[in-house]
Amino acid sequence: MAALFGGVEGGGTHSTVVLVSGDGQILAESEGPCTNHWLIGSEECLRRIERMVSEAKSKAGADPEVPLRSLGLSLSGGDQPEALAAMTQELQRRFPHLSLSYSVSSDALGAMATASDRGGIVLISGTGSNCKLINPDGSETGCGGWGHMMGDEGSAFWIAHQALKAVFDSLDNLGAQPHDIGYVRGAMLEYFQISDRTGLLPHLYRTFQKDKFAGFCQRLALGAQVGDPLCCHIFTKAGEFLARHAVAVLPKIHQSLFLGELGLPILCVGSVWNSWDHLRPGFIRVLEQARAEAAGAEFSRFSLLKLKRSSALGAARLGARNVGTALPLDPAGNVHVFYTHRF
Amino acid sequence: MAALFGGVEGGGTHSTVVLVSGDGQILAESEGPCTNHWLIGSEECLRRIERMVSEAKSKAGADPEVPLRSLGLSLSGGDQPEALAAMTQELQRRFPHLSLSYSVSSDALGAMATASDRGGIVLISGTGSNCKLINPDGSETGCGGWGHMMGDEGSAFWIAHQALKAVFDSLDNLGAQPHDIGYVRGAMLEYFQISDRTGLLPHLYRTFQKDKFAGFCQRLALGAQVGDPLCCHIFTKAGEFLARHAVAVLPKIHQSLFLGELGLPILCVGSVWNSWDHLRPGFIRVLEQARAEAAGAEFSRFSLLKLKRSSALGAARLGARNVGTALPLDPAGNVHVFYTHRF
Repeated sequence: MAALFGGVEGGGTHSTVVLVSGDGQILAESEGPCTNHWLIGSEECLRRIERMVSEAKSKAGADPEVPLRSLGLSLSGGDQPEALAAMTQELQRRFPHLSLSYSVSSDALGAMATASDRGGIVLISGTGSNCKLINPDGSETGCGGWGHMMGDEGSAFWIAHQALKAVFDSLDNLGAQPHDIGYVRGAMLEYFQISDRTGLLPHLYRTFQKDKFAGFCQRLALGAQVGDPLCCHIFTKAGEFLARHAVAVLPKIHQSLFLGELGLPILCVGSVWNSWDHLRPGFIRVLEQARAEAAGAEFSRFSLLKLKRSSALGAARLGARNVGTALPLDPAGNVHVFYTHRF
Repeated sequence: MAALFGGVEGGGTHSTVVLVSGDGQILAESEGPCTNHWLIGSEECLRRIERMVSEAKSKAGADPEVPLRSLGLSLSGGDQPEALAAMTQELQRRFPHLSLSYSVSSDALGAMATASDRGGIVLISGTGSNCKLINPDGSETGCGGWGHMMGDEGSAFWIAHQALKAVFDSLDNLGAQPHDIGYVRGAMLEYFQISDRTGLLPHLYRTFQKDKFAGFCQRLALGAQVGDPLCCHIFTKAGEFLARHAVAVLPKIHQSLFLGELGLPILCVGSVWNSWDHLRPGFIRVLEQARAEAAGAEFSRFSLLKLKRSSALGAARLGARNVGTALPLDPAGNVHVFYTHRF
């Protein structure tokens, strides 16, 4: 069998592996659970990666003893260079049979490599949130990505937390609560299978699982769809916070990124973007304000892009590039534009 | 040896045990670490309680095989009736030699029993925060006390978190940061012994210890003392949030609590109150506003009280009361008034 190039997209809730041939054919795809090393620990993260990739190899009918030519990993929680280097070393040491070469990058880089070679802003809102500007020259500027204890604004975790906090505060009479909590409270009892709010405490502490907690966001998205004012309010706020992440990196942006047909490309990754209709009012408001305050008129429009394929493809590209191979995967075919705004 | 009555004050950072004779003499006092079962788990909590009480027994020269007449425990994180009942049962089952009778209550109740029999508001700001109104008829209304994932506003944890979040946001250019982060950033690097902010991540996740994290608040209190604007700003905000907890329980208050010489008594528990000078602007502002918005003029003043003795004394009183014994401890001598405000 010819050389295989692997890619892993590792998220806070689930993960994807692809195996690609040198001519760009996707030979296998395989799914797995969370591979965020901050959430599950490095040891478990490594084990899960090994399992998923081995499974994909057997799906592709490849000899399990023959290593891939390269494996690119694009992992959420993978923003710290030291952590990335340590993980690369551990993979090499522990699993020499899995791949000849490893390269680990952040989820943002893998997503961008799936969508484009020209750069743009990657704005992630899945289990957690993160924002990364990647300039055409490859330079990067980040905002956020520090996890639920120090950020994650606008993410599914954050939306779930905001909603539950509103329930607690309302029952405590702590501060004025502008919206009725009825829908969210009922959804909380049902989703967490509890009979009152004290039942939530184990889910916050002893048995805390970020993906389970963040999964409550789906119920809130349904609430927003049926017009529950509290849910709509929180999604609007989430839209504001996500836009603030993009605004935070604007001062470092290469002006050429404003000039394409689509204006500034913002690659939106993560399932919270499925609720774009409810994020939109807050998102647009913050960007319009930033545009009004910024000098220079080059920022005349922006477009929101979504991947049609897993970031595991971009991760595979980055991994192959690392061993000098350009995989013939057409990035432009992997995205679609779901919104364009002209100021 | 005559019957001994024990009391435990269990905090999120440290704990105290006292042993009292039937005539109100304190025979032994002993210190120990955190006994908040949400933070360390019930198993470790029980072990620590057993160890501390046994130590106090031997300090008092008591026979370790002779149980106390009663042990009252007043524990932070002890607000859920089911959890209190379960812990009482476990203590009885596991440690019959330690005490003939156990009664477990919240830290707020133990503090109030140390200070007064007439009730008032207990406002706790230590590692975490909590507020409890105890009316003269014994009825209770709470606000907060849900731990760092769902509240703790105005606590040492919260103050530390606000300050560190300001550092992260400022370095991320996320939103306008009104205050320079220089002092807090330097204090962060020194306190956590790290060389940059990514070094903080293990302290937030893998090796998170609430008491260690909250301990950073002491450095911020020093910062406020030397006039660092960011530290002062955060303590003012903490004062606002603490006052909001008191305001939240006002609608349930028995009017007689306004009428004493001191006005509404607010018993302030926890080390954050050592920074009262810096909490004050925010605290007063919120209470003045609430007073202005409230109908009726009975709320004409309030006083802030501090315990001179450990809440373990109040816990011992409650424990003894539970077996029909009134310990002759003078509550009024256990408090002092450190601030009185007239509207």
